[in-house]
Amino acid sequence: MSDVTEIKSYLNQCASLVEQTLATALPAEWDVPGLLRESMMYSLEAGGKRIRPALVLAAAEAIQGDAKAAENALSIAGSIECIHTYSLIHDDLPAMDNDDYRRGKLTNHKVFGEAMAILAGDALLTHAFHLIPQAARKGRLDPQVALDIVEDLAMFSGASGMVGGQVADILGEQGITSIEDLEYIHLHKTSDLVVFSVKAGARVGGATENQLKLLEQYGRNIGLAFQIQDDILDLIGDEAKLGKKTNSDVAQQKVTYPYLIGIEASKAQVKRLTREAKAAVLDAELAMPQRLLEIADYLVQRDF
Amino acid sequence: MSDVTEIKSYLNQCASLVEQTLATALPAEWDVPGLLRESMMYSLEAGGKRIRPALVLAAAEAIQGDAKAAENALSIAGSIECIHTYSLIHDDLPAMDNDDYRRGKLTNHKVFGEAMAILAGDALLTHAFHLIPQAARKGRLDPQVALDIVEDLAMFSGASGMVGGQVADILGEQGITSIEDLEYIHLHKTSDLVVFSVKAGARVGGATENQLKLLEQYGRNIGLAFQIQDDILDLIGDEAKLGKKTNSDVAQQKVTYPYLIGIEASKAQVKRLTREAKAAVLDAELAMPQRLLEIADYLVQRDF
Repeated sequence: MSDVTEIKSYLNQCASLVEQTLATALPAEWDVPGLLRESMMYSLEAGGKRIRPALVLAAAEAIQGDAKAAENALSIAGSIECIHTYSLIHDDLPAMDNDDYRRGKLTNHKVFGEAMAILAGDALLTHAFHLIPQAARKGRLDPQVALDIVEDLAMFSGASGMVGGQVADILGEQGITSIEDLEYIHLHKTSDLVVFSVKAGARVGGATENQLKLLEQYGRNIGLAFQIQDDILDLIGDEAKLGKKTNSDVAQQKVTYPYLIGIEASKAQVKRLTREAKAAVLDAELAMPQRLLEIADYLVQRDF
Repeated sequence: MSDVTEIKSYLNQCASLVEQTLATALPAEWDVPGLLRESMMYSLEAGGKRIRPALVLAAAEAIQGDAKAAENALSIAGSIECIHTYSLIHDDLPAMDNDDYRRGKLTNHKVFGEAMAILAGDALLTHAFHLIPQAARKGRLDPQVALDIVEDLAMFSGASGMVGGQVADILGEQGITSIEDLEYIHLHKTSDLVVFSVKAGARVGGATENQLKLLEQYGRNIGLAFQIQDDILDLIGDEAKLGKKTNSDVAQQKVTYPYLIGIEASKAQVKRLTREAKAAVLDAELAMPQRLLEIADYLVQRDF
């Protein structure tokens, strides 16, 4: 288990760097209404594992073979966390999942009201796109690379990406019967931001087109494996370890992988996806592939 | 009045170009859930005067002295209309202004439901940022210029821009007593997108830093003048001409310019701002300043 301890400590280190970046992401000198700033920061600083930004840093390192590469990728890491955070704020709204708590804290709209939660989400989404040119302005990123990252972010988080996945999830709540429909939701709701994170980090590190393609496969696979594992954990996981009610998907009659193909086939799927993710990383001939390989294993070993 | 006829026809021409661009802004080959696409297009195609995108085209032309410059600016014009449209969808939500109709059509959430309206807004906001790198990819825009436009868009439409103005408006609904507070709201809620539009068009046209600075002043002034004029029209305008109930601000006890400084001082303010806007355009020594000068006059002459 020492591997797990080590990658956990690496991810904690990344999370701490990202949290420092987020603390100053919204410049103090900006003339922003106080409550809006408070509402944005409340959710940005509400914790979470910061897996997506960690993947940005890990991918930049993997390409450059140098831990210092992560420094140049920090603004991009902050950017993806702004997107992830806005999506949680909007998902929690009464018109969507109507959740009062997230990670043990009141959700944004419970503290600041619905109107402010909608606007804080909008502002965080917008701010994600401010952090990318900013990185280029600091001279740490080539303009064309920064622009490619902007294009990727809009693609993977928009109508054909994360938002599309969220819509499919809402529309499908009653009627999903095929593994293809479920896969569409998982790929877009979860994998797309993971793919963006890995690709963006790789772009900062100066990846070739072929490396980007292989890392896109890696991201898709670990995102999907993570989500299937989440479905499995919900059925068999230990309530205390997971920190949330298990079997809640069954209670809500939510269609999951185990529900559609059975638990053993789901486990086999997780293993296959993880194996293929690691194979893609090895094919990419990275300067320092180790962290990405460890993360692929770690994501599906959580609390086991 | 022939001046007005001419600028009206120019603006109609721009609107028609922009609407063609918007019709294909969301590529047909993208795998987007059908209802999400429908919801986005419903609001994108719901009309309006398309003043912001027209300003993008007019500013590009003004700098280059060539009507063809507008072609290169079309993606950017589409981008600002995506932002404007998302802001209207979110503003109309029950948690915000709770409006059932806009421009005589049912609002987005009345047709597609609240969840879809929130997500369609999010997707349009995100798509605005997709259209900018796309313009560069087509070879029509230098990557650094495109990146500057991304940075401007995030700045003028985000926490320190339009969203900040909207928050100030909501928070101030009961308590605005100073002209400074009211100006903050107008500058950010209205002027910021106008400033962005003029600057972005000018950037596409290859403006110098000095020209950008002067056109920023122009945008601020015409945006603010437009808004004050709107307050005045609400008090004295002809209901039929304006196409909406007048005196509604008074009925809602909304604090406006005429309410704070009186109608004559408000009119003088509109004149001063328009004059200064035009002076800035003349100072900028543009190749073809005429349209921008005419637009400044037209915006405050509407239906008079």
